[in-house]
Amino acid sequence: MQLQADWEPRYARRAERMRASEIRELLKLLDEPGIISFAGGIPDPALFPVETAREAYAAALADGVAGQALQYSVSEGYLPLREWIVGHMGRLGVPCETDNILITSGSQQALEFLGRLLLTAGDTALVTAPTYLGALQAFSAYEPRYDELRPEHGNRTPDAYRRAAAAEQGGDVKFAYVVPDFANPTGETLSLAGRTRLLDLATDLGIPILEDTAYAALRFEGEPLASLQALDIARIGSIDATRVIYCGTFSKTLTPGLRTGWICAGRALIRRLVLIKQMSDLNSAAINQMVMHRLASTQYPAQVAKAIEHYRRRRDAMLAALERHMPSGVTWTRPEGGLFIWLTLPAHIDTRALLQRSVAEARVAFVPGAAFFAGDTGHNTIRLSYSLPGEAEIAQGIERLAALVKA
Amino acid sequence: MQLQADWEPRYARRAERMRASEIRELLKLLDEPGIISFAGGIPDPALFPVETAREAYAAALADGVAGQALQYSVSEGYLPLREWIVGHMGRLGVPCETDNILITSGSQQALEFLGRLLLTAGDTALVTAPTYLGALQAFSAYEPRYDELRPEHGNRTPDAYRRAAAAEQGGDVKFAYVVPDFANPTGETLSLAGRTRLLDLATDLGIPILEDTAYAALRFEGEPLASLQALDIARIGSIDATRVIYCGTFSKTLTPGLRTGWICAGRALIRRLVLIKQMSDLNSAAINQMVMHRLASTQYPAQVAKAIEHYRRRRDAMLAALERHMPSGVTWTRPEGGLFIWLTLPAHIDTRALLQRSVAEARVAFVPGAAFFAGDTGHNTIRLSYSLPGEAEIAQGIERLAALVKA
Repeated sequence: MQLQADWEPRYARRAERMRASEIRELLKLLDEPGIISFAGGIPDPALFPVETAREAYAAALADGVAGQALQYSVSEGYLPLREWIVGHMGRLGVPCETDNILITSGSQQALEFLGRLLLTAGDTALVTAPTYLGALQAFSAYEPRYDELRPEHGNRTPDAYRRAAAAEQGGDVKFAYVVPDFANPTGETLSLAGRTRLLDLATDLGIPILEDTAYAALRFEGEPLASLQALDIARIGSIDATRVIYCGTFSKTLTPGLRTGWICAGRALIRRLVLIKQMSDLNSAAINQMVMHRLASTQYPAQVAKAIEHYRRRRDAMLAALERHMPSGVTWTRPEGGLFIWLTLPAHIDTRALLQRSVAEARVAFVPGAAFFAGDTGHNTIRLSYSLPGEAEIAQGIERLAALVKA
Repeated sequence: MQLQADWEPRYARRAERMRASEIRELLKLLDEPGIISFAGGIPDPALFPVETAREAYAAALADGVAGQALQYSVSEGYLPLREWIVGHMGRLGVPCETDNILITSGSQQALEFLGRLLLTAGDTALVTAPTYLGALQAFSAYEPRYDELRPEHGNRTPDAYRRAAAAEQGGDVKFAYVVPDFANPTGETLSLAGRTRLLDLATDLGIPILEDTAYAALRFEGEPLASLQALDIARIGSIDATRVIYCGTFSKTLTPGLRTGWICAGRALIRRLVLIKQMSDLNSAAINQMVMHRLASTQYPAQVAKAIEHYRRRRDAMLAALERHMPSGVTWTRPEGGLFIWLTLPAHIDTRALLQRSVAEARVAFVPGAAFFAGDTGHNTIRLSYSLPGEAEIAQGIERLAALVKA
């Protein structure tokens, strides 16, 4: 047997907080044939604009531009794409300029950059419970404590947050992170009143808000709500004065494969983030940004409409099946968009254990909800995604899962 | 006048160490027409394998695979590309398996990940003086102190390094970072004796070595030297026991535009780095990895041969011009490969001031050498790259620069 170098004692202190996501490890095992998976939450590849992508890559590699497409490029991102995003943000009620936009490798990179920029060990990040698992992973490397944000059902007072933040290690409250529309994992949308309360709280605390809008474009019904950033700009007058840092992505509307997202924020903050981009990976691939520019400028509204139609049918199928099959004592959210439904089972059910049985006996996969909490809770919750299975599979899968819950 | 939100007081402590690179800011100004630029150091786009890239993108987007090309993918990287890299590392004397390889978004991302994994504030990173500017940027966010590595001309003793590391803040020596072949910025290559001394030092200190091989494939003449990792494996028996973390990239051989590099290391370390990749940007774009796999497996040796021929002519032109025009008192390195020559001018010359005059009067750009030192030194040094201008321009540019140095 050969020796393995053991560098564990040499790692930075922060490495203790870089834990493998049990869930993400689990997901690798759920791709077996015959499993109906509600676990993933990734977009349906049937929707990808493949034909346009083919044309766009060919155009990016045409004589005269190929040298640019395959060369290093600026850390800020490809200017025509940033110009398209400026127009897009304007249509969402956020007047801004290209200096307010940084292209990131998906919004995961945006979250990681913001954690790195804002968090000193012992500082506090305010997050909802549950919240997006990837955000917890991105932030945790910078050793924060977490406190709970409840914009819909009553936050703590600013002073209470401040005192709790200072109590343990003398840290500050550094930001609030929220997915206001069709949240991962709950599918819920923050009401206008909740948005206002959150802006008020952040103003009182003097902190920025990280607004993760990954699913916001996928509204099936009801009136769109203004983004926190648009609401703040309406209050405060300009993008450069806003406390809201908007994280956008093309992953759920066009394709996640080009790893293209953006941050829209005040230009002083963007300048800092450009430095972080430079030290992190110099720049996102120019060719992918050129292609994304063409996809967005030719396909964005059509692709969004197609995706809405597609996922609405699947949400409807899942809600109908839940209604039909789930026993009393089980409750769930009714999302107006996005990819997720959140189930709460009777308190005595541990959904990690249920998952083992569900995969083995019912051939149905889901994500146990505990993964989405910073604290040790949520053991009787489940995240279901309807993004990948067809309607018939959804009906079948929910029926089998319900039978297991009843058993 | 509108208010700007000022988040500076809210930033993490580490933000103080995330400084704008004066040089990189400067480089943006050097693209004016009429300037002969020895500043860049980026590959010549005339060498890019455009035709194969076109075919490869079309193939990646063919029916049946397009869904994979445009979807999320695994954090470890595209398996066939990792398999190709395993073969490549084997040819370089490093027997390994796919579990020893992580795909990164260029080697800049590799360096940033390693800084994040290894450095707690106050720890020591050993670097040569001068060293790669991007490495200093990547590491500095994690608030190290730097100590000087001199593998060629006599390192300090292990105890001296240890004592210095502990003296200020009680930190540890965490790693040694080195570009052994045709280094950025000096063009120099670490001798076999120097490599052995560095391995001995790292063994004494019980630290890993970060081996940055960005330019190693571009050897114009002389015998290739074994990589530090190959030498260590020859000593120690296996990739999983090695203390060397090998950072490779396709940026200087095939194209930097796909942002594709890799880390080859023991699998326990790779597992940690996969987590960091996941929390940082989930995965590098699958489509670019599929394309890079095709480029590497069909073009690697031919592209390397072409690049060597191309850059050798330019190095020769620059060395000849330096010989012909530079006054006595100016010395320079004679690289056996890579993209850079390092000039040392008489001690009274400040090359930052010289650059201002050089751009204004001689229309010649270069990088003042001070940027490549962790400490405040190197004011009379210059990095010259011969990668972009043609031979005639090189001759002309060096003649004009020499006239300015003499004046």
